[in-house]
Amino acid sequence: MRIVVALGGNALLERGETPDAEIQEHHVLTAVEALVPVCRDHEVVLTHGNGPQVGVLALESESDPALSHGYPIDVLGSETQGMIGYWFLQALENAVPERRFATLICQTIVGEDDPAFSNPSKFVGQVHTKEEADELARQRGWEMRPDGKAWRRVVPSPVPRELVELPVIRALLEADITVICAGGGGIPVVRGADGRLSGVEAVIDKDKSAALLAEELKAEALLILTDVAAVEVGWGTPEARPIREISIAGLRAMDFPAGSMLPKIEAACSFVEATGGFAAIGRLSDASELLAGTAGTAILRR
Amino acid sequence: MRIVVALGGNALLERGETPDAEIQEHHVLTAVEALVPVCRDHEVVLTHGNGPQVGVLALESESDPALSHGYPIDVLGSETQGMIGYWFLQALENAVPERRFATLICQTIVGEDDPAFSNPSKFVGQVHTKEEADELARQRGWEMRPDGKAWRRVVPSPVPRELVELPVIRALLEADITVICAGGGGIPVVRGADGRLSGVEAVIDKDKSAALLAEELKAEALLILTDVAAVEVGWGTPEARPIREISIAGLRAMDFPAGSMLPKIEAACSFVEATGGFAAIGRLSDASELLAGTAGTAILRR
Repeated sequence: MRIVVALGGNALLERGETPDAEIQEHHVLTAVEALVPVCRDHEVVLTHGNGPQVGVLALESESDPALSHGYPIDVLGSETQGMIGYWFLQALENAVPERRFATLICQTIVGEDDPAFSNPSKFVGQVHTKEEADELARQRGWEMRPDGKAWRRVVPSPVPRELVELPVIRALLEADITVICAGGGGIPVVRGADGRLSGVEAVIDKDKSAALLAEELKAEALLILTDVAAVEVGWGTPEARPIREISIAGLRAMDFPAGSMLPKIEAACSFVEATGGFAAIGRLSDASELLAGTAGTAILRR
Repeated sequence: MRIVVALGGNALLERGETPDAEIQEHHVLTAVEALVPVCRDHEVVLTHGNGPQVGVLALESESDPALSHGYPIDVLGSETQGMIGYWFLQALENAVPERRFATLICQTIVGEDDPAFSNPSKFVGQVHTKEEADELARQRGWEMRPDGKAWRRVVPSPVPRELVELPVIRALLEADITVICAGGGGIPVVRGADGRLSGVEAVIDKDKSAALLAEELKAEALLILTDVAAVEVGWGTPEARPIREISIAGLRAMDFPAGSMLPKIEAACSFVEATGGFAAIGRLSDASELLAGTAGTAILRR
């Protein structure tokens, strides 16, 4: 079965953790442990978030104006694709030596006319106090918004329209190679009137890119892995209970708060609607069970 | 013709330049201009250095101990593969839209017993004054050595033994995809007694990796592109004159100072000796002429 697996950037770096390499590498090992049975038995394309990592590199690239000016987000995104992609590549090669893996640097085309550019909404990087946030907004021109009790930088999150390296991903799958790609939803680029690609300052929603990837690759399943066990009815209330199985229509009729779950639900629905395939949302450590339908939330066509 | 092209890291960042993204992207565009005819007419594998870029990221990743501890060199290497690989990917896609390109994250296995680990010799990162160098050695435990009139950090440069992603590179070439890979000579890893790969703090000589890559891929030519027009007899003296064509034996009989040219010569000789193929060393902007034998230094088997 061809499966696209989407992993949250927070799976590698939990809130409040120091963004050291060793800490993230440890999380990668845990993630890979959960992914081994899926990678062993299926044709997998693994994609991952990079929000926390881009934020750290953004801060560091601006840390010493005598050394360099801050790097644009597309370039920071390419660095995180290399770094996170390397960690997964090595961990998967070690865990599943009978298979071949490839980490591919990938660009995703967004529309220059996407309304997201006038309304930045995607959180990236470290959490800050209100005072730090005001200072960063003043000093660096960043747009800062509250995220829970803390403050974080926000950047535009345009809709992914086209995955530039899709033919390369297809060629690798045809050669029976498991692909790690489109990290952070892909490096955001626009195609100009002259047909040329160029990077833009944005972060693409990795779940939307994963859905696009799964659709374009005609995958049979899309697994969206996160740190909660399932989508819940009455989330955040004492009556909260997990949804084991729901139709697109059922899911769309419910009211989810904007936040990290909503884009996952939208991505799963979009994939199921477009392909009739199987989508599930749940905990990373339950990856195999999600695929078997014994854990998480399965999204059905009807 | 299958050709491995090796590009110096200094091609993207000249000595004394600010390591801003924009400056390096500009150099990439210039490099790609020179590579277009070669990429259009041949089956190319492009590899590149990353010394200056790893050095900058190393400094930045240690810039704020409250944010993160310094990242290990293998991880910094993976970031530069992503970043430089992205720049070349996009620039090549724009310049040669009729071809497909892929940037691959690549690991290179070195020996844990390599003598280089007890004798660090590879310059990385920024140039420093003697005083700054002493301070960095004291503060960060770096080994610092003089490089011309300036001082720079040195790290071990073990010999590349095996390219982990070689089968993936082959699969891409078979699918008629031009490959950008093994940046910085590949991310340095060792294979433990249990068969597992793990990263090590080293920088692999990209020219040696390029020669290994060219040998393993049975390339017909290896182009080593740098910022000098040719290998010279009497280099650095008033009698210096470029060598247009020389045999391995002739080249090996000459006395070259340790420095950036010697590893290029050794890599070219190693490739020609192992395969009987064609190798040339010369200026990046002369790439096509090097291949035609009308510029640079051609290294012949006998």
